[in-house]
Amino acid sequence: MKLLRVGPAGAERPALLDAAGVLRDLSAVVPDIDGALLADDDALERVRQAAEAGGLPALDPAGLRTGPPVARIGKIVCVGLNYHDHAVEAGAAIPEEPILFLKAPDTVVGPDDTVLVPRGGEKTDWEVELAVVIGRTARHLESDEAALASVAGYTIAHDVSERAFQLERGGQWDKGKNCETFNPLGPWLVTPDEVPDPQELRLRLWVNGRLRQDGSTADQIFPVTEVVRYVSRFMTLHPGDVINTGTPAGVAMGHPDPKPYLRAGDVVELEITGLGRQRQQLKDA
Amino acid sequence: MKLLRVGPAGAERPALLDAAGVLRDLSAVVPDIDGALLADDDALERVRQAAEAGGLPALDPAGLRTGPPVARIGKIVCVGLNYHDHAVEAGAAIPEEPILFLKAPDTVVGPDDTVLVPRGGEKTDWEVELAVVIGRTARHLESDEAALASVAGYTIAHDVSERAFQLERGGQWDKGKNCETFNPLGPWLVTPDEVPDPQELRLRLWVNGRLRQDGSTADQIFPVTEVVRYVSRFMTLHPGDVINTGTPAGVAMGHPDPKPYLRAGDVVELEITGLGRQRQQLKDA
Repeated sequence: MKLLRVGPAGAERPALLDAAGVLRDLSAVVPDIDGALLADDDALERVRQAAEAGGLPALDPAGLRTGPPVARIGKIVCVGLNYHDHAVEAGAAIPEEPILFLKAPDTVVGPDDTVLVPRGGEKTDWEVELAVVIGRTARHLESDEAALASVAGYTIAHDVSERAFQLERGGQWDKGKNCETFNPLGPWLVTPDEVPDPQELRLRLWVNGRLRQDGSTADQIFPVTEVVRYVSRFMTLHPGDVINTGTPAGVAMGHPDPKPYLRAGDVVELEITGLGRQRQQLKDA
Repeated sequence: MKLLRVGPAGAERPALLDAAGVLRDLSAVVPDIDGALLADDDALERVRQAAEAGGLPALDPAGLRTGPPVARIGKIVCVGLNYHDHAVEAGAAIPEEPILFLKAPDTVVGPDDTVLVPRGGEKTDWEVELAVVIGRTARHLESDEAALASVAGYTIAHDVSERAFQLERGGQWDKGKNCETFNPLGPWLVTPDEVPDPQELRLRLWVNGRLRQDGSTADQIFPVTEVVRYVSRFMTLHPGDVINTGTPAGVAMGHPDPKPYLRAGDVVELEITGLGRQRQQLKDA
């Protein structure tokens, strides 16, 4: 299933993109798409049956905003330097274990919402990422099977990053990862039955129509199952949490000077196999 | 005012500790203590008038658990190495600007709840901190006055930290700061009118009755107003967000070997002038 949330920011309604590509209103079936729904097998089964029965009202997508596909996200755990090619371009050693940092849920916007270049930001960079949405509480998972069982679905995250804040202002990366609008998410939460192998997904990102990132999750240093297991040893994952699993090569920071950092007016588009497409215009904060 | 939340975890009710030290039920006045309440001057004024009118029902504190004083926390921004004496004991340079990292809201427990030594954790450390709770959306604040106006109140945070996860496992501090139960908060949210000078507060922490930290917010490298202003340049602060403003000297990591890290059975007590007292027992996760 492809679950999504449509409508004005803060007032989205749950919806579904059916097999024929028709947008269907789910608000008579479930109140919203959030951790509570994703942990509730019965509710998810009701959604699936309603979709198959074919009686869900169609929604006109014209002029309808798409919001983030999950409401009330608890935390966003991010993996740094998780692609071989990106670690090389960053001039970093291949990590021996996953590097983790956090983004606050209030950075999340819809997949096509405006992204703001922060005031004082001169090195705002792009990062296309496969995001994993958690559906089962996960603590100290031991097996790949348990890790996969805790995944409610996959979506696209744009892990926007202000490199000067992240790397040149003392201390920890979080400072450059948590500016307003810095985590476009969506368009769809795609359930695992439609993502047979999360390690065979192509990720692409364009800036003003020019292809800047073109990678594959096959190049991940720590694959999804290992990431989920690893994170669950250090923090408890709850339904509605999100893991951004890292970005492939091609970010602005990896270019020779002058690096093509994002400016107001730029348009960024992102795509991952089977997970849809995002498009954001940059503006000044 | 001293606002708090009492009752079973996840089902707390709002309460108030009145001027005579009597616990009063607020659930007929406001639904809960959260960002929405803290941003609502009219609702806060209703609470204040109800408290002064004296008609609020008393609650029997015997056997009543105290929860965290704020529900639905959006994010927890933490300042690292913000006391001169702690930077010295950590062998670190005095930071030129605040070091920021994040804790997830799901690490928050009540002030007297059990704290878990994480599985595999061998260097679980204590940190008493003055926590600032935000009541007004804050972006790019320019003045100390604007910073103070965005503060809804103060409370105690225990920024529990697993040093091996934080410092020896690659990358960012967040990995050792986000284990389950790692942020006891409370007991009270004390409104600013009762904290005339946040830079004159004594912070103390005992382990098994032995005084381990005894500092003053006067020793903060970046005082509360500067911290709030600084954070607001990098991330937008929302009502119900929390800032942990750093810890003074005396943590286990600062001791000669063998360092007295926390073990199951230990009891930690924390106190800050005018903000009350916490007491946690350690158990194994």
